[in-house]
Amino acid sequence: MKRAVVLLSGGLDSATTLYVARHLGYAPQCLAFHYGQRHEREIGSARKVAARAGCSLEVLKIDLPWKGSALLDKEMKIPQRSRASGRQGRGRIPATYVPARNTIFLSFALSFAEAINCRDIFIGANALDYSGYPDCRPEYYKMFNQLSALATRVGVEREAIRIQTPLMTMRKSQIIKLGLRLGVPYELTWSCYRGGRVPCGACDSCRLRALGFAEAGAQDPLVTR
Amino acid sequence: MKRAVVLLSGGLDSATTLYVARHLGYAPQCLAFHYGQRHEREIGSARKVAARAGCSLEVLKIDLPWKGSALLDKEMKIPQRSRASGRQGRGRIPATYVPARNTIFLSFALSFAEAINCRDIFIGANALDYSGYPDCRPEYYKMFNQLSALATRVGVEREAIRIQTPLMTMRKSQIIKLGLRLGVPYELTWSCYRGGRVPCGACDSCRLRALGFAEAGAQDPLVTR
Repeated sequence: MKRAVVLLSGGLDSATTLYVARHLGYAPQCLAFHYGQRHEREIGSARKVAARAGCSLEVLKIDLPWKGSALLDKEMKIPQRSRASGRQGRGRIPATYVPARNTIFLSFALSFAEAINCRDIFIGANALDYSGYPDCRPEYYKMFNQLSALATRVGVEREAIRIQTPLMTMRKSQIIKLGLRLGVPYELTWSCYRGGRVPCGACDSCRLRALGFAEAGAQDPLVTR
Repeated sequence: MKRAVVLLSGGLDSATTLYVARHLGYAPQCLAFHYGQRHEREIGSARKVAARAGCSLEVLKIDLPWKGSALLDKEMKIPQRSRASGRQGRGRIPATYVPARNTIFLSFALSFAEAINCRDIFIGANALDYSGYPDCRPEYYKMFNQLSALATRVGVEREAIRIQTPLMTMRKSQIIKLGLRLGVPYELTWSCYRGGRVPCGACDSCRLRALGFAEAGAQDPLVTR
């Protein structure tokens, strides 16, 4: 079985991506980050999801002392109804954007993949029902793949490590339907940016999730708990 | 004064780059990484160089548990006469290559630059008298700059953060001559991969440094100590 590095945040999209990678015949090696996010409890969800899928998980602690995001800085407010959220991420990029976060995550994934001699990285980026973050768009991943070919020894000497974004053009409801078919344990995932005991129901992430389950005609197992 | 993020390793090239950025009128904000490198003492050099230049320094600790490099893994041997080292990095990429290291460093620099609202990042990459690392070549930086335009909020909404590589096409001797003119305190820098009490004189990094000083007709102040 070919190995693949899967970026697992503990949220709905990354959990689905993990199950897609497994379904495609890869042996996933999950990678999660503790980066000072308010919703640190998503790490616990990542651990549970990886365990349920029978995959290893590496959790890296990274330090972003400059913050620059409502997800990291408790003095900043998590927006309740960001104009950006929703289909196609119209409007301004919201305050929950973390400077260059996905570039940091992918660079570690690239290093991990090269060190363990694996050629594929999976990430649950989505540019349809999303918050409008620049590093979730297809053009960004296309460019990162071009960078990957130049950045590593394996890319130069043999074959570039490829970033795969299977959910990129799917609606949240389609992601959920696919995930339910693949047996993704959504009750173990965590999406809320606030990271309280129960989801707040009002942040971008909660709203996109609720919209997705509603459109999929399914009940969110997390909300019933 | 415009601020710039300067990646400072504590070595000769990055110290020179810091002084070049300062000479160009930037107020440098230095960034160094503690990433499990054997020659951890370069961090001490980075602190001294930044202090001498009167600049702030942020030191981040990052974890690369997968290693995959002789610079990180004490079970691996640091090559003494890598075929790759020397002018134009001919031949194979040596065992001291750290998977995706510069991509990781640059992604943190991008995050830092965006958070402090600065548009320029300086790195002392050089593709002439170098070890043949893929992420030291001009094509890699050209691509990273294209990625930068897509990766960040500031890149999308206003202007991309730019990676500047002033030493890229210089010979080591030219770097040293320039640095001596700008007052770079080379006695505070550290290049040796082995990170002992004194430079080993045999690793790629020591050899390139010695060649540079010899060709510049200058005495390395570190060696006389």
